[in-house]
Amino acid sequence: MSQVTGKVWAPVITPFDSNLEPLVSRLVAHGHWLVSHGVGLAVFGTNSEANSMSVAEKQRLLSALVEGGIDGDRLMPGTGHCAIPDTVTLSRHALDCGCAGVLMLPPFYYKGVSDEGIFRYYAEVIERIGDDRLRLYLYHIPQVAQVPLSLSLIARLRAAFPNIIAGIKDSGGDWAHTQALIERFSDDDFAVYAGSERFLLDTLRAGGAGCISATANVNPQAIVALAASWQADDADDQQQRLNAVRDCFEGYPVIPAMKVATAHFSGQQTWRSVRPPLIDLDDDKSQQLIKQLEALSFVMPGMESSHA
Amino acid sequence: MSQVTGKVWAPVITPFDSNLEPLVSRLVAHGHWLVSHGVGLAVFGTNSEANSMSVAEKQRLLSALVEGGIDGDRLMPGTGHCAIPDTVTLSRHALDCGCAGVLMLPPFYYKGVSDEGIFRYYAEVIERIGDDRLRLYLYHIPQVAQVPLSLSLIARLRAAFPNIIAGIKDSGGDWAHTQALIERFSDDDFAVYAGSERFLLDTLRAGGAGCISATANVNPQAIVALAASWQADDADDQQQRLNAVRDCFEGYPVIPAMKVATAHFSGQQTWRSVRPPLIDLDDDKSQQLIKQLEALSFVMPGMESSHA
Repeated sequence: MSQVTGKVWAPVITPFDSNLEPLVSRLVAHGHWLVSHGVGLAVFGTNSEANSMSVAEKQRLLSALVEGGIDGDRLMPGTGHCAIPDTVTLSRHALDCGCAGVLMLPPFYYKGVSDEGIFRYYAEVIERIGDDRLRLYLYHIPQVAQVPLSLSLIARLRAAFPNIIAGIKDSGGDWAHTQALIERFSDDDFAVYAGSERFLLDTLRAGGAGCISATANVNPQAIVALAASWQADDADDQQQRLNAVRDCFEGYPVIPAMKVATAHFSGQQTWRSVRPPLIDLDDDKSQQLIKQLEALSFVMPGMESSHA
Repeated sequence: MSQVTGKVWAPVITPFDSNLEPLVSRLVAHGHWLVSHGVGLAVFGTNSEANSMSVAEKQRLLSALVEGGIDGDRLMPGTGHCAIPDTVTLSRHALDCGCAGVLMLPPFYYKGVSDEGIFRYYAEVIERIGDDRLRLYLYHIPQVAQVPLSLSLIARLRAAFPNIIAGIKDSGGDWAHTQALIERFSDDDFAVYAGSERFLLDTLRAGGAGCISATANVNPQAIVALAASWQADDADDQQQRLNAVRDCFEGYPVIPAMKVATAHFSGQQTWRSVRPPLIDLDDDKSQQLIKQLEALSFVMPGMESSHA
């Protein structure tokens, strides 16, 4: 594994059929569409419904992406589970697939656990994987995992595993926290990604690496454009336009809403399926979302032909 | 599967060796010790570190318990995972093993999910298992799972799957909630278990089924004695003595503390191992706990010979 290098990554949404089985070829098609727009694939993130899938399902999908021609440099799968053996199994598979890095949730079942316990978890995982090629990106998403990763824990992990702990995704939604991470840790060997493109410009200006953002699934081109031209005069205007699209999706449960948009622009209605406990958007809300997107002149260029 | 019938169940603690691998024969020995004291085995509960183990590990341990001579009537394994395929795999295995019932967490990764989403999750699981023998006990533990099971959801599940939804474990620690569950739902076809022996007497007096309690791992005899004699004159005194032992364990992180006690009374120090993110009690705290237990004249009769 080399350090991941892209500025914009999507926690790729996962297509299911009407029986809620993963649609392998459609995921590969969506992956190619995203890569063609310059977005790396953080498959198996929160917005991928990763924890609604078994380890075996994720292994199969990751293999299919690689066999389907997605380069390992464009892949940063989420591999963190509550159980150490599961995290190790999927992370090793990611290494076998040549992935650029892995994005790793802390164990999220027990609440109120200590930094010492979380440190021991990551240390045990790293030692069991036992591969110097591992590049591990921490995944801070306290509002969902309910297990935050403190600055002192990150410092301790970096000190113990300097070549392996390669970065963090901060999905907490608190810019002050992302800024603190960048100020304290960001360097050539540690990449700080914001968890939303809403903070993309601020992150790049502060010296961070970029963003890993749900809505990069649906609005990749514009997000990548800002990441490439963040020092241009119109950067703030670009950020405002990104925010308007994001506001639209955030008016709904984001995962079902992104799937409705993807279904609409691809013409493949099964994209709307989500696994419980998530529920799909009803027809009224779906139509309302599409109207709002149309009012923003929002499109997903090339989606229909790529998903045929 | 028949309805489970015991009044007292333990979420059985799981022994790991110094490499954090499950110690199969020791789990079987502990299971026999518990059953010999009248306690049923709710293996793979929160206090079993269930979510720190893979599905395959749990399948192997459950098979070993049955092959080791534990009767299926004494087994109610926890089978709830975030991913439907995992829950189905382990629940089917429990049916194959002849278990009396399964105790099922809601999917616990996503937060703020709707009752509709949780209903769809349980419905999909039940339909995929596709076996009328299934007896499903809901597992309400909002402080850990962060996904509560509402009374209206329970009513809807009972109405949709009247022969399958067989009861609930209420680990919320709020007696008013347990009482409301008993008043609304408790009957011959629906068993309400308190999640702590602290509520055992109140539960039985109100018409509930009993308790599924962590400290039944270490204090089975006295808890079972109260469950058998709850209408006796000294029932309140018995409850007070149970509470004193429980208070002692609750002065520490409960899982490591129970493992320290089990290590002490069995003479098998590897019992102290826990999987991260949990951490074991240090030597000072362990000695302090044992002194407090000795002051209560607490013993685990027969433990040393059964775990030799």
